[in-house]
Amino acid sequence: MNTFGRLYRLTSFGESHGVAVGGVIDGCPPGLELDLDLIQNELNRRRPGQSRITTPRVESDTVEFLSGVFEGKTTGTPIGFIVKNENQQSNDYSNIKDAYRPSHADFTYHQKYGIRDYRGGGRSSARETIARIVGGAVAKLYLDKLGIDVKAYTSQVGHIGLENDYRMYDLTKIDDNIVRCPDPEVAELMIKLIQETRYQGDTIGGIITCVIKGVPVGLGEPVFGKLHTALGAAMLGINAVKGFEYGMGFNVSKKGSEVNDSFYDSNGTISTRTNYSGGIQAGISNGQDIYFRVAFKPVSTILMEQQTVDITGKNTTIKARGRHDPCVLPRAVPIVEAMAYMTIMDYYLISKANKPES
Amino acid sequence: MNTFGRLYRLTSFGESHGVAVGGVIDGCPPGLELDLDLIQNELNRRRPGQSRITTPRVESDTVEFLSGVFEGKTTGTPIGFIVKNENQQSNDYSNIKDAYRPSHADFTYHQKYGIRDYRGGGRSSARETIARIVGGAVAKLYLDKLGIDVKAYTSQVGHIGLENDYRMYDLTKIDDNIVRCPDPEVAELMIKLIQETRYQGDTIGGIITCVIKGVPVGLGEPVFGKLHTALGAAMLGINAVKGFEYGMGFNVSKKGSEVNDSFYDSNGTISTRTNYSGGIQAGISNGQDIYFRVAFKPVSTILMEQQTVDITGKNTTIKARGRHDPCVLPRAVPIVEAMAYMTIMDYYLISKANKPES
Amino acid sequence: MNTFGRLYRLTSFGESHGVAVGGVIDGCPPGLELDLDLIQNELNRRRPGQSRITTPRVESDTVEFLSGVFEGKTTGTPIGFIVKNENQQSNDYSNIKDAYRPSHADFTYHQKYGIRDYRGGGRSSARETIARIVGGAVAKLYLDKLGIDVKAYTSQVGHIGLENDYRMYDLTKIDDNIVRCPDPEVAELMIKLIQETRYQGDTIGGIITCVIKGVPVGLGEPVFGKLHTALGAAMLGINAVKGFEYGMGFNVSKKGSEVNDSFYDSNGTISTRTNYSGGIQAGISNGQDIYFRVAFKPVSTILMEQQTVDITGKNTTIKARGRHDPCVLPRAVPIVEAMAYMTIMDYYLISKANKPES
Amino acid sequence: MNTFGRLYRLTSFGESHGVAVGGVIDGCPPGLELDLDLIQNELNRRRPGQSRITTPRVESDTVEFLSGVFEGKTTGTPIGFIVKNENQQSNDYSNIKDAYRPSHADFTYHQKYGIRDYRGGGRSSARETIARIVGGAVAKLYLDKLGIDVKAYTSQVGHIGLENDYRMYDLTKIDDNIVRCPDPEVAELMIKLIQETRYQGDTIGGIITCVIKGVPVGLGEPVFGKLHTALGAAMLGINAVKGFEYGMGFNVSKKGSEVNDSFYDSNGTISTRTNYSGGIQAGISNGQDIYFRVAFKPVSTILMEQQTVDITGKNTTIKARGRHDPCVLPRAVPIVEAMAYMTIMDYYLISKANKPES
Repeated sequence: MNTFGRLYRLTSFGESHGVAVGGVIDGCPPGLELDLDLIQNELNRRRPGQSRITTPRVESDTVEFLSGVFEGKTTGTPIGFIVKNENQQSNDYSNIKDAYRPSHADFTYHQKYGIRDYRGGGRSSARETIARIVGGAVAKLYLDKLGIDVKAYTSQVGHIGLENDYRMYDLTKIDDNIVRCPDPEVAELMIKLIQETRYQGDTIGGIITCVIKGVPVGLGEPVFGKLHTALGAAMLGINAVKGFEYGMGFNVSKKGSEVNDSFYDSNGTISTRTNYSGGIQAGISNGQDIYFRVAFKPVSTILMEQQTVDITGKNTTIKARGRHDPCVLPRAVPIVEAMAYMTIMDYYLISKANKPES
Repeated sequence: MNTFGRLYRLTSFGESHGVAVGGVIDGCPPGLELDLDLIQNELNRRRPGQSRITTPRVESDTVEFLSGVFEGKTTGTPIGFIVKNENQQSNDYSNIKDAYRPSHADFTYHQKYGIRDYRGGGRSSARETIARIVGGAVAKLYLDKLGIDVKAYTSQVGHIGLENDYRMYDLTKIDDNIVRCPDPEVAELMIKLIQETRYQGDTIGGIITCVIKGVPVGLGEPVFGKLHTALGAAMLGINAVKGFEYGMGFNVSKKGSEVNDSFYDSNGTISTRTNYSGGIQAGISNGQDIYFRVAFKPVSTILMEQQTVDITGKNTTIKARGRHDPCVLPRAVPIVEAMAYMTIMDYYLISKANKPES
Repeated sequence: MNTFGRLYRLTSFGESHGVAVGGVIDGCPPGLELDLDLIQNELNRRRPGQSRITTPRVESDTVEFLSGVFEGKTTGTPIGFIVKNENQQSNDYSNIKDAYRPSHADFTYHQKYGIRDYRGGGRSSARETIARIVGGAVAKLYLDKLGIDVKAYTSQVGHIGLENDYRMYDLTKIDDNIVRCPDPEVAELMIKLIQETRYQGDTIGGIITCVIKGVPVGLGEPVFGKLHTALGAAMLGINAVKGFEYGMGFNVSKKGSEVNDSFYDSNGTISTRTNYSGGIQAGISNGQDIYFRVAFKPVSTILMEQQTVDITGKNTTIKARGRHDPCVLPRAVPIVEAMAYMTIMDYYLISKANKPES
Repeated sequence: MNTFGRLYRLTSFGESHGVAVGGVIDGCPPGLELDLDLIQNELNRRRPGQSRITTPRVESDTVEFLSGVFEGKTTGTPIGFIVKNENQQSNDYSNIKDAYRPSHADFTYHQKYGIRDYRGGGRSSARETIARIVGGAVAKLYLDKLGIDVKAYTSQVGHIGLENDYRMYDLTKIDDNIVRCPDPEVAELMIKLIQETRYQGDTIGGIITCVIKGVPVGLGEPVFGKLHTALGAAMLGINAVKGFEYGMGFNVSKKGSEVNDSFYDSNGTISTRTNYSGGIQAGISNGQDIYFRVAFKPVSTILMEQQTVDITGKNTTIKARGRHDPCVLPRAVPIVEAMAYMTIMDYYLISKANKPES
């Protein structure tokens, strides 16, 4: 259950306070040039301490590849990699050894496993997503050559949100600000809200929108392997995610006549006039842009006193110390992209397998 | 990709216009009494022709079990079953042989496979969900004995919706009306809206809410096998579904201090005062009610002329004939329940495997 | 665990004394013409009652396809099929209801599941292999077009055996006799031995050799998915199989200098002078003939009184009645072929997925 | 395909000449004390340079655990580990960069992937088995507590072999000599033969026998997941293995009346008088000893000139340099045990999942 994908597979391991986090990518085709700068750049986008609205914790998060690469190219064998944990400060967490933090993994992990690495989030730590970033970056390198491009951005923080239509925004500007919102003015408002929330010792939720362009017709498998099912599962596997919608999503008070996407001949290519389907029909990509939205709850760690129970079940209170993210979204944008890249990569390889013989 | 689950597995087969639809349940523990009446009753809840707001097509949808059952009990071997297709009326579909219906599977299936059973939805037909109903009903029989109960209901049709809090409604009354909404007055409004929509030859979307009670603490696997990830994938695999949210879902403009679920000692059991988490924390059930919402788009088949292209890519128009559902929700309620039952069953078996030795 | 394969998948169901046996083929590419005569012919080669050295039980074993085929071609969707059980004669088995037949599935199934279909072999019956024959025949239709050919034959019955080198025999003659041995004189001896064994109420073991020609270079996946690993698992999953060897196999008292297969330039193609490797090197096909041998124990059902225990654990005796195979090999030849075809098909599809982009 | 197992899963990575080899164990239940000495001891049994009949190459092969362990116990989360590659001597292999070594992975890997790490065996190197040793040792720690014990030994080298019946030997003496044969006199002959073979620059094959005691009744899954199928696949996935047989194996010239294992009441437990079945009936363990034999070909690397082709397909010759094993068996004994432990562990967890509710 720590493995993602069918033909392009990432197995991840590692806790926040262990020696290292890492992963194994299995199924990457051979001959791909591994652009280490691009991979490290994606890690840097996820890294803590990158701006004044993320946790000030500093980790260099430098990836070391251990296998599967020869003379700069993938060999078709599994790509093992690790990122060492540097800044652990276990003592920060001593107060949470014997009590369950509300809405954290503490209680469920302890009940399930009977043992718990109390020095932090353990396996549920956001640090595990490092492996996903690497897996996604390798997929991105591959899909770039096929003209497939994934772009995610922060579209809502608290009550401050963009319009739903991604075509209204210039997606090349996402990384121009620290909240990763393509509208600079809205970005400023979001940043201000996050900073205010931090001063209160509180946290805030939001929404990330993601757009995938260039996906060829035919990716996706009926009936349990629909492309949006896989994308949804990929997103719902990210920490703090509470919802996923694609195309028209939860905007359901519509008639069929309003949201059916009529086909037309667009200079010899079959296209649709509208795209309420979100680029996926009957679970299979139709060549239009794929877009979806992902809801993130506020980070559970708040710097306020909260009521809870200790591990014996007795009522007590708890107050977090240390350095935490007031809002997960800026750092989650590259994670959403990574999961999307891995999903598309997996389905691209599957679609190669079941093509009719030519 | 036509198999759902890991340890409790359903493999489904069959098209709307083939000989039969059916499936194979693999992994059902032995010794379970197979209550055929309950299974058939679930099929009847999904069946077309059940009310004035569903398609008037009539199918008896009688399930035949072919294997895996001996003297009324499961034997631990795979349970094969079929439901024959009776009411096919292939000629109804002759007009759609050469043109792609907007927002249907026609275009993507044809492009992907180069061949298409044009006599109906083929594999993308809602008829495939019969297999899911049977798989879910068998899981329900098993989980009933463990005190686990799943209830889904129509919570929104078009703009007519219930309050979000499921605790406001009496969930024993869901099947008291044909739209399967626990509030009889709202149900009447929904039914009226569906009928009006049908008279216009149009269709309408909506939302189904689902509540699962009695799930023990500890179901769910980090990190890619979170329980809500599996539930989300199960729901996103249902035809016409465009979104999934659980717990606080897309209602993200909240502070951490507002939505953290504080633990307390409830007569010797650890419980939470609120349940914004939706019964799942860090991907693992925490013993509270699990609840989620599923968005359904309007049915694509409308009785109006629509613009489209034919299979050569030329612009044309198309108009559906025949008998169709104006709203998928009443018949989708048992499907949502079935997918939830199978998911919980699968994770229940997985949790048995990885429990510490006692 | 009732599913075989990764991308070309067969899920099988059914017991000897249920309504039907059948299966679902998932992952067959679209557009394959389904030659029903060829498929039925393979079933006939497996069928009981086909000759004087098989059980005289008569079953027509006519396959009915339920889905996945349209206008005679596969559509890419799952192919469901059943074969009805006709000749059940449950009363034949009444004497074995309360006692465990030695070396049969009775004891282990009963202990594992706590319930047992005592009317025959249940799920462990050879009847289950019908599904494999169908799965293999569909793969054969596909691989035929790629020039891949599988031939199995009876190479040993009791102490009567052929030479190990398959190139000494004319493999087109395998079906010319009822024991399926390509050497007519040895075949006569085998048939005589089987008949003598039957008169004694006894059974006899043997070996089947299988040769696969035309497999392209590159099928097989390091490290746990080696091609011979998959072939071995496929064979070891057949009832009564006790051993598998390929290439030089158990003939291990050899030096490296004797059995290394040196490469040479054979008119522009790289070939090997010898083939001790059996067509597979480091788990990947090298373009040479693949060959292997499969050991079958004698059938456990003998028409003699045997000592055993009853289901309460008390010592007793048992004597089989009815109609049984004195030797499993003649009917196992098409099963070995079917499992080989499915394995090669699966790996062929996998190899398509992980080919470098051209 | 670099992942082994279903519920107890090992994903392995690493090449002989990369930075490190390693793996991820997923599915190990929590609370297991990780005895690092035992694990390292198993690695030492596999290590090169351990005796005068193995390669003199020296590697310390010290394992570093990176995750999944807290305060000396497993936590239920994935256990990542690495072993650094120390003694690479890439220049030893410069002569094989442009030519394919006969019966090695060079040709098939190059043809399949279009790229090859020519500095050694790459992914096909025996070095990859380090990950399996660790995975097996962790399983051994778990199964020890359940009274399950695996013992493998060298039973044949070249023409020098033991009797087939493992009960004739004292299996506690296996590690008393460097060839790991429980009969000290035969061991001496084997060692002498291996040394002679080495002086000739040649290599020699052989057979390893393995016995598993204490497996409870009921492990194994019909029909494609039979226990011996899994054991066979586990063994056939080890480098240089050419055959697998269990119970009576290829000794097939037997009558049913000779090899049926009759049941009897052994002091209240149902036992069998003989064990031709090899402890597995109908794919499920029956409580008797499980035993099987594994055939290994001679190592392909010989210190003699051999004919081959270069990577352009032209005829040439090649002669290995450096330090190699003249016989793989002494170091393969712990690998056979490790694969057996992992297989039994996997099936033990599976059997927990599908037990009837008590």
